[in-house]
Amino acid sequence: MAIDFTLLRTDSDTHARLGRITTPHGEIPTPAFAPVGTQATVKALDPRDLHELGAELILGNTYHLYLRPGADVVAELGGLHSFMGWDGPILTDSGGFQVFSLAENRRVTDEGVEFRSHIDGSRHLFTPEMVIRTQEQLGADIVMVLDECAEPNDRAYNEQAMARTHAWAERCLRAQTRSDQALFGIVQGGIFADLRRQSAEFLSGLDFPGYAIGGLSVGESKEEMLATLDITTPLLPPEKPRYLMGVGAPEDLLEGAARGVDLFDCVLPTRLARNGALFTRNGRINIRNARYERDAAPIEPGCQCATCRSFSRAYLRHLFKARELLAPRLATIHNVHFLLELMRDIRAAIADGSFQTFKGEFLSAYPVIPHDVRVANREKRKSRVSNRESSS
Amino acid sequence: MAIDFTLLRTDSDTHARLGRITTPHGEIPTPAFAPVGTQATVKALDPRDLHELGAELILGNTYHLYLRPGADVVAELGGLHSFMGWDGPILTDSGGFQVFSLAENRRVTDEGVEFRSHIDGSRHLFTPEMVIRTQEQLGADIVMVLDECAEPNDRAYNEQAMARTHAWAERCLRAQTRSDQALFGIVQGGIFADLRRQSAEFLSGLDFPGYAIGGLSVGESKEEMLATLDITTPLLPPEKPRYLMGVGAPEDLLEGAARGVDLFDCVLPTRLARNGALFTRNGRINIRNARYERDAAPIEPGCQCATCRSFSRAYLRHLFKARELLAPRLATIHNVHFLLELMRDIRAAIADGSFQTFKGEFLSAYPVIPHDVRVANREKRKSRVSNRESSS
Repeated sequence: MAIDFTLLRTDSDTHARLGRITTPHGEIPTPAFAPVGTQATVKALDPRDLHELGAELILGNTYHLYLRPGADVVAELGGLHSFMGWDGPILTDSGGFQVFSLAENRRVTDEGVEFRSHIDGSRHLFTPEMVIRTQEQLGADIVMVLDECAEPNDRAYNEQAMARTHAWAERCLRAQTRSDQALFGIVQGGIFADLRRQSAEFLSGLDFPGYAIGGLSVGESKEEMLATLDITTPLLPPEKPRYLMGVGAPEDLLEGAARGVDLFDCVLPTRLARNGALFTRNGRINIRNARYERDAAPIEPGCQCATCRSFSRAYLRHLFKARELLAPRLATIHNVHFLLELMRDIRAAIADGSFQTFKGEFLSAYPVIPHDVRVANREKRKSRVSNRESSS
Repeated sequence: MAIDFTLLRTDSDTHARLGRITTPHGEIPTPAFAPVGTQATVKALDPRDLHELGAELILGNTYHLYLRPGADVVAELGGLHSFMGWDGPILTDSGGFQVFSLAENRRVTDEGVEFRSHIDGSRHLFTPEMVIRTQEQLGADIVMVLDECAEPNDRAYNEQAMARTHAWAERCLRAQTRSDQALFGIVQGGIFADLRRQSAEFLSGLDFPGYAIGGLSVGESKEEMLATLDITTPLLPPEKPRYLMGVGAPEDLLEGAARGVDLFDCVLPTRLARNGALFTRNGRINIRNARYERDAAPIEPGCQCATCRSFSRAYLRHLFKARELLAPRLATIHNVHFLLELMRDIRAAIADGSFQTFKGEFLSAYPVIPHDVRVANREKRKSRVSNRESSS
């Protein structure tokens, strides 16, 4: 068994779960948030930063690493852990979502998905067998099946994509040769309750060591996302970890945890940081704002991150205005710390039975703002759908 | 006395000196190389990186900080040390060189130099009094007089610029109000031995706590630079530190130290690093080269920098090819380490009497390549001269 999941406690007020995933590269206390290291680096951070931040799991993107530097190069350098110098747990996605959101000229068949690289236009084919082989070369602790991520509100497309996702899931299982990697299935079905049920039940029957909930935070409303979680997570085997892909806004982490999600990942904290948008418990601030020009306070008073312990808002604003390389680094440290600290608080609250209170207090202080990632993904989705139409 | 200079040993084979400068923010063992933190950050590094690299002195640029965020902002945040979180020694230049190399529409009079900002075109005037006041707001340990940096081979211009530099030096001394900052004079005179002699003698009479050698590495040949050093350093008071501005190629550090220079600064290691050009004892390599695609070795085997201890050439190449923010950071750490390690080796060699041997061995292994900074400065110089001609 590549991973072991221990369910330590289930919250009595919500469906929140406190747990622990044991992997070949260490333990992941859950619920956990994984910073995204798309190209074998969490942008602007090095592995020591990640250890100091207390990151328990990071994500790598198979699509990007397959294209550059190439999974064979990573394998020759000893695998992703060795290549990037990170000895903690890693999860790689299958590359499917990126093919649908980034690549050009996609053509999906039952065999797999053919596409052109967004880097150099070269032609490639991802099949279930091939993405398993690629992820085996990369060597992450948790790997994902190839799935087809459909427009969440398009029923006909979801029926078709779900059937394909299920067939691909079986092929991925058969293709797997490494016993030290845990392969997760991905539940699809858009916003349609009966399809989600069908998908959860079918995949549960395949006995994956963990389950992802895919196709969310990609264009549907927040209410639709939470309603889909409400019906999906109870259908998944409670003894397996559940991973909500691509979700990382603070309010979504709380809502997801409350619905029994154990793992999250998202580019939100790192992407926002590079734009100068910084998390505080009272909402996001943009550090480029003129009001911070002479502000000697840290980003968030009391924050224990390396940035807040050493630098003022005025200095950070200056670095952003002067376009200094140190700006994204210090901002990223703060934002990643903020989410990892939130996960630590969530776990502590589940452990002592105060999760619902903690969630209410956090959300009452934190003004929810439009979901940047969801909006960004909606844009990608639009281009994907138009591409799908033109290539099918 | 803001600083104290102790001359520990003078080499018997060369003019190299081993010494120690004591400042309000700590000791600088000499000869020393100062990484450049133009905009209150050594590009891509934070203060902890600098401490771990063993940086003994860093430089800040008055011209840049005056324009952005403003010396008053830095002062309000507690001065440059506090603003950027660096508690070690800092040197600020007067901004004069940047006015001549970066700013637009310069007009030099005996009063000072008027220019337009390269950032927003706003109009400013640097006078000797004003650059002292600005540097007092920034609060560095070592500060510089305003000087006029002339085309090194233009005799008439050098005579005029030198006379103005001398008058400005006297005004800077009179303008100084802080007793905790050491104000250095700057010897000018281009490549003309008699002018250098005049300048060194005049400024020595003003009893500055230290002396810079200006106007070099700005377009003259390497031979002219070394010949000018040969005649200038013996004319400076031996009990005061000598600072060769803007010089930092490995071979120039050795040649400068051999001629009795105690301090150097240069953007070379940090700028090269951002372009993927990395120092090794056998010359520079460009890490973007395809030959490093699968190279598991560190940049330089045996190097003890944080980058070489953790990452392969293959990984660094990947980061550069993928334009990741971690690339300039890891490369900068290596290049700054390389020069600081070279200075540690130079000091150890002077201490045990083996400097000339060390210098010969280093230079025989290190292929000298065209002086990037000199070439870059020559380009700037050309535009400056044309500007001078059009505005005078």
